[in-house]
Order: sequence, then structure tokens, then C-alpha cells
Amino acid sequence: MEMKPVNLEEAVRGLDELWSPHVVARVGDYFVKVARVRGEFVWHAHEGQDELFLVLQGRLRIQLEDGEVALGPGDVFVVPSGVRHNPVAEQECWLALVEPASTLHTGDVVTERTRTIEEQLR
Amino acid sequence: MEMKPVNLEEAVRGLDELWSPHVVARVGDYFVKVARVRGEFVWHAHEGQDELFLVLQGRLRIQLEDGEVALGPGDVFVVPSGVRHNPVAEQECWLALVEPASTLHTGDVVTERTRTIEEQLR
Repeated sequence: MEMKPVNLEEAVRGLDELWSPHVVARVGDYFVKVARVRGEFVWHAHEGQDELFLVLQGRLRIQLEDGEVALGPGDVFVVPSGVRHNPVAEQECWLALVEPASTLHTGDVVTERTRTIEEQLR
Repeated sequence: MEMKPVNLEEAVRGLDELWSPHVVARVGDYFVKVARVRGEFVWHAHEGQDELFLVLQGRLRIQLEDGEVALGPGDVFVVPSGVRHNPVAEQECWLALVEPASTLHTGDVVTERTRTIEEQLR
């Protein structure tokens, strides 16, 4: 049993690439991931899978088809299953995510930013 | 659809009672909860259910049968299914938890601190 906690911000500091989530913990069938993001991601949805965003540093806007949610540090927002969304950060933003282990972060859209689960576990 | 994020620390500030988790978000079959704790909880285990601890403020020790894990702000630790544990905080500590919606926070032990899911949703 791994007896060491993981510090979320330290885990983000270890990331070289933007928009490339890294798995830091598993709770049952869900992964906790961290990511550093800046700019605009891509419009997508996750069918049958909710996705939780927690902002660690900076600010994130989550564009939705019927509006927009603005998150700052310590703010949590869950994008429900099937809801199309597009994360946007004007400045660099550090995030934690909680989502089913099977969720592809670009959802139903595959782009050059899509990372497989195997890549996210490295 | 609820378009407002929840701030984890503000949610903790709204709690009157120690060791009484409050549900702030749901991701699929999992709840995200916040709690304020101080002192020693109770030795217990959750069969078939992992439990994630994230420290928001303060320090938490999680006693395990074969050792102890010390968490500070931003630290995440998952107590695996079936592992007996006892959270201890010398000073007040603010926590977020991620666990299956069906998890009772005192696990296999029912004490005067046990709160039903209905109480945690209020």
C-alpha cells in the first residue's frame, strides 16, 4: 500500500505540457487528475459521465451551450453527462479533475490534444 | 442545471458541527463532501469503497494499522477499500472527501457521530 499523500500543486508543477491531464489518484472507478491549462480547449461532451473541475490556481471559464461558469481557486463545478462544454483560461490555470477512469478528456472529439489513459498514467 | 460553482472553503465555513460531512457535489455515483474536524474520529473501514481525503486547511493524520499518513494543505490520500483507519487532527482541519454516494462516513462502526446520507445532504 502506497503510504504517501500526493500534493496536487506539486503534481501540477511536474507537468511539462498544457491540456495533458495526469492521474494522481484512483477512488474506485474514478480517477483524480491534475492539469495545467491556458487558452481554449475544444468543445466536447462525455456521454454517460460527469466531470468535476476543481481550480487550484488561476481562473477557468467553462463555456456551456446555455451560458458560462467562472471558477477561481477552491471552486468546484460538475459538468453533467452529455453536456457540451469548452474550458477556457485567459492565463495559466492549475486544475484537478475527478472523472470516471474510462473518460477520455476530449470526450466525443478526438484532436491532437487527446491523450490516452495510458499516457495520462505515465 | 445549476450553473454556479461551489467554493470548498466557503462550504466548510457554513458548517457548525465537527465531523459532520456535508455533500457539495455529485460526480456519477460519487459524492464530494466537505467537513471540519478536530480531535480523534473513530477506527473504521469501508468495505468495497475507497475514500479520498483532500486537506483544504490545517493538518490531518490518518492512522492506519501499519502506520500513519500526515497530510497538509493540498495533499490527497486514498484509504483503500477495507483498510481500517482513524483520522486525527490536533488543530481544526478543513477537509474535502470523495467517496461513493452509499458510503457511511463511520464505515462499519455506528457511533453518535454517524450522520445519515440524508443528514449530509441538508
